[in-house]
Amino acid sequence: MTGTVDLAPLVAALPATCVVVDPDQMGGYRWDRANDPHAGMPLAVVRATSTQDVQEAVRFAVAHRIAVVPRGAGSGLSGGSSAVDGCLVISTERMRAITVDPTSRTAVVEPGLFNAEVKAAAAEHGLWYPPDPSSYEFCSIGGNVATNAGGLCCVKYGVTSDYVLGLTVVLADGTAVDLGGPRLKDVAGLSLTKLFIGSEGTLGIITRAVLRLIPAQRPRATLVATFASLDDATRTVLDVTRRMRPSMLEFMDRTSINAVEDLTRMGLDRDAEAMLVIQSDEPAPHAAAEIGQIGDICRANHAAEVFSTDDQETGEAFTVARRMAIPAVEKQGSLLLEDVGVPVPELGALVRGIAAISLAREVTIAVIAHAGDGNTHPLIVFDPMDADQSARAHRAYAEVMELAIALGGTITGEHGVGRLKKAWLPDYLGQDALELNKRIKNALDPLGILNPGAIF
Amino acid sequence: MTGTVDLAPLVAALPATCVVVDPDQMGGYRWDRANDPHAGMPLAVVRATSTQDVQEAVRFAVAHRIAVVPRGAGSGLSGGSSAVDGCLVISTERMRAITVDPTSRTAVVEPGLFNAEVKAAAAEHGLWYPPDPSSYEFCSIGGNVATNAGGLCCVKYGVTSDYVLGLTVVLADGTAVDLGGPRLKDVAGLSLTKLFIGSEGTLGIITRAVLRLIPAQRPRATLVATFASLDDATRTVLDVTRRMRPSMLEFMDRTSINAVEDLTRMGLDRDAEAMLVIQSDEPAPHAAAEIGQIGDICRANHAAEVFSTDDQETGEAFTVARRMAIPAVEKQGSLLLEDVGVPVPELGALVRGIAAISLAREVTIAVIAHAGDGNTHPLIVFDPMDADQSARAHRAYAEVMELAIALGGTITGEHGVGRLKKAWLPDYLGQDALELNKRIKNALDPLGILNPGAIF
Repeated sequence: MTGTVDLAPLVAALPATCVVVDPDQMGGYRWDRANDPHAGMPLAVVRATSTQDVQEAVRFAVAHRIAVVPRGAGSGLSGGSSAVDGCLVISTERMRAITVDPTSRTAVVEPGLFNAEVKAAAAEHGLWYPPDPSSYEFCSIGGNVATNAGGLCCVKYGVTSDYVLGLTVVLADGTAVDLGGPRLKDVAGLSLTKLFIGSEGTLGIITRAVLRLIPAQRPRATLVATFASLDDATRTVLDVTRRMRPSMLEFMDRTSINAVEDLTRMGLDRDAEAMLVIQSDEPAPHAAAEIGQIGDICRANHAAEVFSTDDQETGEAFTVARRMAIPAVEKQGSLLLEDVGVPVPELGALVRGIAAISLAREVTIAVIAHAGDGNTHPLIVFDPMDADQSARAHRAYAEVMELAIALGGTITGEHGVGRLKKAWLPDYLGQDALELNKRIKNALDPLGILNPGAIF
Repeated sequence: MTGTVDLAPLVAALPATCVVVDPDQMGGYRWDRANDPHAGMPLAVVRATSTQDVQEAVRFAVAHRIAVVPRGAGSGLSGGSSAVDGCLVISTERMRAITVDPTSRTAVVEPGLFNAEVKAAAAEHGLWYPPDPSSYEFCSIGGNVATNAGGLCCVKYGVTSDYVLGLTVVLADGTAVDLGGPRLKDVAGLSLTKLFIGSEGTLGIITRAVLRLIPAQRPRATLVATFASLDDATRTVLDVTRRMRPSMLEFMDRTSINAVEDLTRMGLDRDAEAMLVIQSDEPAPHAAAEIGQIGDICRANHAAEVFSTDDQETGEAFTVARRMAIPAVEKQGSLLLEDVGVPVPELGALVRGIAAISLAREVTIAVIAHAGDGNTHPLIVFDPMDADQSARAHRAYAEVMELAIALGGTITGEHGVGRLKKAWLPDYLGQDALELNKRIKNALDPLGILNPGAIF
């Protein structure tokens, strides 16, 4: 549908250097970190500088019935911003303004800013934007909103949605609409701000967000515990979350521990079946006391080793180790990166089931988890040159999602459905909820212009 | 459209005593606490006992094109559950089951349970459901979800929406759909759970909610400060919220202080222009220390008197005094109960502006506020027998909303639009956002069966 489109009017309507058509340059806009093998070649990439630019681009796309693929920093893990053939990629990477108002404890941000940059701007005022995806140094806040991104501190502080008070969204017809604002409570009209959060570019393009900030996080006390048994580790998680709210509660299995140890040589216990990294940010001396109680719970559950520290740098080193798990495992081959979540009491069953799938399909699956949320990232390792192993890896990828659904869980806790997981969405949602999703999509994007192939 | 409807098939399809048609009995289902003078007479009231009952009733309504007005405990303050002539009121008051799972820290609740009963059930397991509207002893959890209710602890703990993980909703065609569930992170599909929260019965009828619970709140330290100047009080609010997260930050003006003192004789300072009641629930001794710092801020802002206590009962007495403001002011006449909110830095301008409106319209307006959220409840007192005063009161009611909009605020922070505030919704939302709201409404309820006249 794109062969004969004349881009000149679009180029003329936008600031210089906004429209990219060079195939080499466009290569950088075809994939996100999911490396979708089916990614297409865009007609053009629009590097918008403002809400108005985005509106111009969408209106042009509507006039010519061209698909629009919105794009933040391209750090997505579900193929939500894979290009489709002949589409207009609208990138928000150049929209990077931020204003922090310490009195109302809010920030107004453009979507192209990295999560870490939002945190840094807040920190200048003694404030904190909590959501912390592991990719926080290179994921955009717009993408965070579009996927309702999570992270490590969510177990205590919630997800992106909990910090978004308002949005400006460019709709499928090019209208820009302001929703919500810097008001901590607001129930006038339907909860549309929340609807757009996590909609993965299928309902509109986010061009501005009003974020809620909170006072800076306090120093953390950190505990690291290793276990000779998976069950002991997952039972520890339940014993902790039943009573307390640690500010981080992360899990690594043997495979990921060893991958990180290969990379860092920091002295992790290679024989452990599981490791938990737990932090408390209660005011001193309560952080240390809470970590002390958690240590007791670990020991009661037969922990092999329990180490705790008040030192911020040492604690941060273990957090970094945990964050390093994905790149570390990636050294062993290509990854299918899972994101399944279950009700916390089913965590043990999920982890054991994943081990069984790994065994049956003869593929390595490393498991890391935001354990306190029941949100796991099984990393399925495979050699893309080995067709049989690739097939087994993809089979395992499906089976992990099916297992999560069977345990009352979700196919994606924080990465999004994108293009890679949409085949499993009907099974997860059921027919009625899926139909309801589609009714909203059709009401807001009747031409199907926005991010076609993502979610639905 | 209802004159000739034969209710026999509906009566036959539902358990005994579900369908009420006696006009006297139906009288109790025509109004909520907004006492909407335009409330109509229902065709019948269905006191549902299950999701299936609600489905039966909605299907019957669809078949006969009868309006449906969903109803919780009838404690709403915006006329969201005023009956309309010839409608089917669907009351969820008999749906009162609750199951608490301490391991996943979630509760599955039916909508008819009172908020206080949810809190009590959670407390049996050492857990806490934070949202606490002042009506918590007689408002239903279903109504809380339908209005995205707030309360006093929201300033630290957020609103209803922050605690709802899943819903069962009966749609406008009688389909029941399960959304979300006991998973702390879930981004599979659009954020439909959030969309139904605060939709005031216009998109579906909530028949089940999965709630997130947190560990029991710690003991509170409480501070009460009085001020001879409104500006000093509102400046104190800003100085506190800029740096800290008290678990309660309430404001009362001179009129409400005096009304409460008339009722309670607890020794409140009748000459104060404003009083703040502030709590901290940080772990001891930090609660007392935080309250100490807040006391310093009060004194730096020329507080007339600052009193603080660690004693739970004394602290609770001041919270009760604050909660008593509405019934206390109500003794002076009929009330138009406002719910406007502004960005916190505009709180002073809002309170001063309300005083000016009170003076200009010659009506008493008592102001209480969840000050830390910028959410105020101006209580406009009038004698309904005095036509001229009533007209001035209604004029003031409108002007308060217009003032809030002019200050970048909302016409309703936590009560909902209902039928009483819908005339101001277009001004607040603007044409594009309003149209977007309507598009969602039409997509989900094309026949306009659900709660017609509410919000839209």
